[in-house]
Amino acid sequence: MINAVKRDIPDYLLKNGKEVYQGKFYMDGKYVKKASPKTRIYEKPQESKLVRSIAEALRQCEAKDGMTFSFHHHLRNGDYVADMVMKAAVEELGLKDLVVAATSLGDANNLIADYIEQGKVVGIQTSGIRGKIGEVVSKGMLKTPAVIRSHGGRPRAIEAGEVHIDIAFVAAPTSDCVGNCRGTGGKSNCGSMGYAMTDAEYADKVVVITDTLVDFPNYPASVKAIDVDAVVVVDSIGDSGKIASAAARISKNPRDLMMAENVAKVIASTPYFKDGFSFQTGVGGPSLAANLFLEKYMDERHIKMGWAIGGICGPMVELLKKGKVKKVIDVQDFDIDAVNSINQTPGHFEMSASQYANPANKGAFVNKLDFVVLAALEIDTDFNVNVLTGSDGILRGAPGGHPDTAAGSKCCIIVTPLTRGRMATVCKHVVTVTTPGDCVDVLVTDYGIAVNPLRSDLIKNLDDAGIPHVSIEFLQEKAYSLVGTPDDLQWEDKVVAILEARDGTILDVVRQIKPFKI
Amino acid sequence: MINAVKRDIPDYLLKNGKEVYQGKFYMDGKYVKKASPKTRIYEKPQESKLVRSIAEALRQCEAKDGMTFSFHHHLRNGDYVADMVMKAAVEELGLKDLVVAATSLGDANNLIADYIEQGKVVGIQTSGIRGKIGEVVSKGMLKTPAVIRSHGGRPRAIEAGEVHIDIAFVAAPTSDCVGNCRGTGGKSNCGSMGYAMTDAEYADKVVVITDTLVDFPNYPASVKAIDVDAVVVVDSIGDSGKIASAAARISKNPRDLMMAENVAKVIASTPYFKDGFSFQTGVGGPSLAANLFLEKYMDERHIKMGWAIGGICGPMVELLKKGKVKKVIDVQDFDIDAVNSINQTPGHFEMSASQYANPANKGAFVNKLDFVVLAALEIDTDFNVNVLTGSDGILRGAPGGHPDTAAGSKCCIIVTPLTRGRMATVCKHVVTVTTPGDCVDVLVTDYGIAVNPLRSDLIKNLDDAGIPHVSIEFLQEKAYSLVGTPDDLQWEDKVVAILEARDGTILDVVRQIKPFKI
Repeated sequence: MINAVKRDIPDYLLKNGKEVYQGKFYMDGKYVKKASPKTRIYEKPQESKLVRSIAEALRQCEAKDGMTFSFHHHLRNGDYVADMVMKAAVEELGLKDLVVAATSLGDANNLIADYIEQGKVVGIQTSGIRGKIGEVVSKGMLKTPAVIRSHGGRPRAIEAGEVHIDIAFVAAPTSDCVGNCRGTGGKSNCGSMGYAMTDAEYADKVVVITDTLVDFPNYPASVKAIDVDAVVVVDSIGDSGKIASAAARISKNPRDLMMAENVAKVIASTPYFKDGFSFQTGVGGPSLAANLFLEKYMDERHIKMGWAIGGICGPMVELLKKGKVKKVIDVQDFDIDAVNSINQTPGHFEMSASQYANPANKGAFVNKLDFVVLAALEIDTDFNVNVLTGSDGILRGAPGGHPDTAAGSKCCIIVTPLTRGRMATVCKHVVTVTTPGDCVDVLVTDYGIAVNPLRSDLIKNLDDAGIPHVSIEFLQEKAYSLVGTPDDLQWEDKVVAILEARDGTILDVVRQIKPFKI
Repeated sequence: MINAVKRDIPDYLLKNGKEVYQGKFYMDGKYVKKASPKTRIYEKPQESKLVRSIAEALRQCEAKDGMTFSFHHHLRNGDYVADMVMKAAVEELGLKDLVVAATSLGDANNLIADYIEQGKVVGIQTSGIRGKIGEVVSKGMLKTPAVIRSHGGRPRAIEAGEVHIDIAFVAAPTSDCVGNCRGTGGKSNCGSMGYAMTDAEYADKVVVITDTLVDFPNYPASVKAIDVDAVVVVDSIGDSGKIASAAARISKNPRDLMMAENVAKVIASTPYFKDGFSFQTGVGGPSLAANLFLEKYMDERHIKMGWAIGGICGPMVELLKKGKVKKVIDVQDFDIDAVNSINQTPGHFEMSASQYANPANKGAFVNKLDFVVLAALEIDTDFNVNVLTGSDGILRGAPGGHPDTAAGSKCCIIVTPLTRGRMATVCKHVVTVTTPGDCVDVLVTDYGIAVNPLRSDLIKNLDDAGIPHVSIEFLQEKAYSLVGTPDDLQWEDKVVAILEARDGTILDVVRQIKPFKI
């Protein structure tokens, strides 16, 4: 069936009430009965939940073949926990047919890629898929299609019971002996633990894995002891030094800075740019650099930012410290400056993924967002964005909060160079639709700005401010004129990944890529 | 059927799997599937949830006859919200057959007592019942038996789905326009909002009522916008000045001080009194005064308290400020000193009722408590305690956290004078069992100390420390010798209140009292 972003969704996927994507607010106003976990009654005085090893925790939690284990990726490329747990499950307990439900997967999870190849891991639910895992899934080696959801879509699916977590594993920089966890105070700090919160509340069993055991009560707790079954102390949960990626630094590239300045100009031209406005930016170079130029306009107009959300990094912490933003609410930290600031800098607080972006609660933060500035791997002339598949069709990206902030915000700005190497970023049809075009308002490139025709109000704002803009078709044609028209990718029939819209409908599918032939 | 505290529970109450009380750890290790609310999907950008009046909020939430409305009592005798809401429901919407599920009810709720008399309110679920409501229920005017639960038993029942809240009303000292609530920063501050948290998470609809609207986001939020349907701004939610009761002051009465000193002596004689020990005290005069004497022993032994929990008041905040307790975790504030300290004094944090005392999660704070010092209206020779019914059989008390802390702690000390006026506090059979005797370890009175024979270890500790103690029968006989043997109360057959044990079994029932005849 063809969906609202013109993608053909195979009928066999549309079972058990599953629908195709029908527009960004299709589910608004509907009611959903939340799911709930089984919990164990602990009436007796309780000294400790410490167990000696991950294997012992798995046995205590009655880990079985076919179970779904959840992980969160606050330690990003430095995470040791997901691989450690899966190794214990597969090697020590001999489990198979496992499903990994992670908030993101990447280079830290090569062992899970091996287990996919070996058929031990048969399902993946994630908000990001990079590195070797992306490759093996793209090659069709996972038994069931991977399900890719946004950071808001994931807690939605968990709360709706569509993802039932048998055991949630929490990588905790600090924990006490009964499982009150915090993202700070240890030796492998990650700051916010926002993605772990929903997992811990909805999983039947919760195992905390920490390398820094602290006195009870470890408070205020991000994951709470009332949800935790077992605590395991290991040598190291990960390498905090690998949280920050190269992308999470402010660019010094003149092209990036020029685009960033244009992003700030666009923002300053809208009526939402007033005292108390709200803002989120991604961590791509030009997105981050927009912070700097925005500050200039804020100073000129004598206004302050009311609040910022998202994955947080150093430049936003700086604005907070300078008093130019009043509050920063944080679901994930992208660098050590942010890790060291949360709950320390006044006004810098933690939130759960559900508070951040879940479309099926009574009002996530993204619903009140004025501006979001986001990157893209590709954007097409319908303003559909792809942040998942490379131009070679291989899974190597992450919807993350992209579709959530785009849908919730009043003004969603995509900033990307027109071409990358020999690839056109602005194209006729993105490989995979990860954020629907009706959520995207403005595109800023190094060759011009385009406004979604759905937003005649923004077009007028830009015109009034004297900001030149062009049609997105113009930009696409320019891109093709520079690097040539891309060849169509060649796909097998097999669906290797299902891209769920944040509301649970199917936005797109990714099929197995055919081996490249000359 | 006779239960484990020798109370005869009518068989007709034992339906739908309801069981009689079978000992304090009867449910430990069992599993329970949690309940869950219906939630509305809000995908669209959202400016505000403000509605103009409580009546309008009720209509928006589709309030109907027969619904269960929940309230929390952090403003105690100064609360205006419960009566305001019930007035709008009954007078403006004409609703009837309503059930009030409150965390406590008392003198602030005389209007609800009127609605019971009028048959508009037909059910009461509460952790405390005092004042006119207690009288009308005791007179048999409520259509169904009131259900009385502890502060831990209440979130247990909500999470188990035994209490389904249709609409939860949150009295919020501050809220933003989408319902992020805090107990501070307003004009009617209550400090911790711990009892409101579970209600807001499990109710189908949540209405926030505030008198101080603040900028979004009101953070960190005690009740979160993701659970809130509507926000109503009223002139005043209550009178903070009425939070503190006369009981919540340290006694200067020499008899109370002598008992308090003996409580501290008992504590200091046990092996649990060591650096990092944990402590909770009630707010009765001698219980509170125990803080002072305990401090002396802590200084002598060069030890500090690790953490304290509970309803918190000034003296504990003082210990925190002096560095003599490391952390205070707070479900409710009993005076303005505590209200002004929470989230301000380093180490003073908020927790939910479920974290505090729920026996059906994976480990409440009470399960790790070393000592609790509690008051009693009556205690019998089986160490059963009554904190609910007066010696006249009228409902005028509150189990509160009494049964939870008694069951969870390693050493539960009851402190009470042997007689009050012409009434024996230590008696053969308490009017109502609210805390089972197997949870109570030591009784300190002005005529001597008795240790529960179940605790031979504590008896040895007292002996080793040279602390004299007597049998509880000796104290009961002494009491009867002073004030005479009490006459048996005369009851009708009708059950007016069911006293649930914290695990959901039936601990006792209260019957309609016969009018007093000479």
